[in-house]
Amino acid sequence: MANTKNTSKTSISRVKLLRKESLTTDSYMEGIFDGDTTILGKAITLIESANPKHVEMARIIIDRCLSKKGNSIRIGITGVPGVGKSTFIEAFGKLLTSLGKKVAVLAVDPTSTFSKGSILGDKTRMQELAKDSNAYIRPSPAGQSLGGVGRKTRETIILCEAAGYDIILIETVGVGQSETLVHSMVDFFLLLKLAGAGDELQGIKRGIMEMADALVINKADEANVKQSQLAQKEFERALHLYPSKKSGWVPKVLLSSAINKEGIQEIWEMIEEYINLSQQNGYFKEKRHLQNKNWFIQTIDEHLKNEFYQNKEVKKSIKKMLQKIQLNKISPFNAAEELLETFKKRT
Amino acid sequence: MANTKNTSKTSISRVKLLRKESLTTDSYMEGIFDGDTTILGKAITLIESANPKHVEMARIIIDRCLSKKGNSIRIGITGVPGVGKSTFIEAFGKLLTSLGKKVAVLAVDPTSTFSKGSILGDKTRMQELAKDSNAYIRPSPAGQSLGGVGRKTRETIILCEAAGYDIILIETVGVGQSETLVHSMVDFFLLLKLAGAGDELQGIKRGIMEMADALVINKADEANVKQSQLAQKEFERALHLYPSKKSGWVPKVLLSSAINKEGIQEIWEMIEEYINLSQQNGYFKEKRHLQNKNWFIQTIDEHLKNEFYQNKEVKKSIKKMLQKIQLNKISPFNAAEELLETFKKRT
Repeated sequence: MANTKNTSKTSISRVKLLRKESLTTDSYMEGIFDGDTTILGKAITLIESANPKHVEMARIIIDRCLSKKGNSIRIGITGVPGVGKSTFIEAFGKLLTSLGKKVAVLAVDPTSTFSKGSILGDKTRMQELAKDSNAYIRPSPAGQSLGGVGRKTRETIILCEAAGYDIILIETVGVGQSETLVHSMVDFFLLLKLAGAGDELQGIKRGIMEMADALVINKADEANVKQSQLAQKEFERALHLYPSKKSGWVPKVLLSSAINKEGIQEIWEMIEEYINLSQQNGYFKEKRHLQNKNWFIQTIDEHLKNEFYQNKEVKKSIKKMLQKIQLNKISPFNAAEELLETFKKRT
Repeated sequence: MANTKNTSKTSISRVKLLRKESLTTDSYMEGIFDGDTTILGKAITLIESANPKHVEMARIIIDRCLSKKGNSIRIGITGVPGVGKSTFIEAFGKLLTSLGKKVAVLAVDPTSTFSKGSILGDKTRMQELAKDSNAYIRPSPAGQSLGGVGRKTRETIILCEAAGYDIILIETVGVGQSETLVHSMVDFFLLLKLAGAGDELQGIKRGIMEMADALVINKADEANVKQSQLAQKEFERALHLYPSKKSGWVPKVLLSSAINKEGIQEIWEMIEEYINLSQQNGYFKEKRHLQNKNWFIQTIDEHLKNEFYQNKEVKKSIKKMLQKIQLNKISPFNAAEELLETFKKRT
């Protein structure tokens, strides 16, 4: 019995392997353009692969997907654990599919290295949406570095758009660097919050509030309503003190009770309002171009730094340099110059 | 008559030149350690020079100055034009010298390329301080790049400390990138503001308020008092919404009328309070170490980027790549990879 099970497992994985190996670039493209989620999933896995053969194929697929112009809206959703992100995304996603939209949900979570294979996790926490044929939930990539995750997420967006998804929701945990990264790849950035004491921003990293196009105070239900309305006013006042955004958009503070599906429609209407405004004043397109340019430059910078810091000689000397700096024996500038000279002499 | 004038000018500059050339590293060091402002000024000019001979000498001088441990406090002062920065620095600097402190004033102004030789400018706008033998005012460096200005300012701080200055005031204009730079080299960051309408932050770049350890509402005099007090309350509330600082310090909002020398003493007392707190909890030292490490890393990054972007082949290809990205013909990531390959093949 146990034996049979093992054999069948092996043969299934062999079949899977064969199927994967046999997929040509053309069949990937066909599947993606047809909106085949199995093939889309495989293509994303290919992009995430570090295998040089896969990398080359992934490059071609991405460039071909780019040529298929999509009109998607990319929305970043962030908030600390406990704010109700999954419930919110489920309610929001269901509203969108009920309006005839195709919705893809991606998660950027630098901690996901510790929770590999979170497919089940992501799907069980959004059960209704997972069953919806117009929704595609992609689990968190098991990326190594934040930069790596970012790269994959950006290219995953392109693939999802080529597969016909109208709305791409990109979720992040609201406590680290990942928000800046997500902000750099979305059209609209939404920050979920809870009403609380004066220290409600404690869990949210500096600067995240400034990036937000909207704050949504979730769990604004029952006993929480009054407190949430107070928080709404306070945040409106705080946002008012920030400089105005280049988009011409004034960030809004809304209330929602995702579990009761309240306030969700209003949030979508607000985002539509933003999209209309920014498309009319040209900011939408301008932002996309700028994001692409930054992505290009970031990739170059990351690569240049990797080459330097991974160099054997540099690795050997850098610790000593940092010690000398700490002891005030060399100025940081002079230390950098010396290390750069070491790097230049490399073979 | 005109002739005589010219001759005398030439001979003066020749004498100056000779004097400059004849200064050895040792005589620079001696002068600096003696607090000789003429030699200090020359040493700073040497640091700002791009001449390779000067660069090498500057390196040695900086490292030697580093070995003389100073106990200075570095204070960044920023605010938009019109907020009364010069008057404030004059009043603040005079208070400090009256308390027996030696004060150096440096300006970081990326626009200074357009106002070379602003020595007179900087000194006339702070006339009293300029005459004070315990104050040293260094005009804005005529640096090319913001990075360059930053590098020079950091090293100028080291020289001033070696020359015995207790308090280094670093002034910046509050509208550009220079604040982040100044923030990265000071112990305390002070933002000058005026009371005004709701849009008072318009002129101040995003994030600057978050960096501030204190906000000072200047020109809080006569008819302005009431409005300034209102603004004080509003800013206190806004600052309250920010996450707490790693230093354990809660940013303060104070009022001043620099022209009437009001509120200046309280500001100094507040800064002293901050210094005590941060020295006791170890944050002061920790921040200095972190700043040095960042300076080291920034220098490396800047250098690596310069080498790449100044490369002939890269320069030739980059425009085409950006166009292809804009037309969605290549993904930014793939474009970056291609350009990096070009760079690697360079001779």
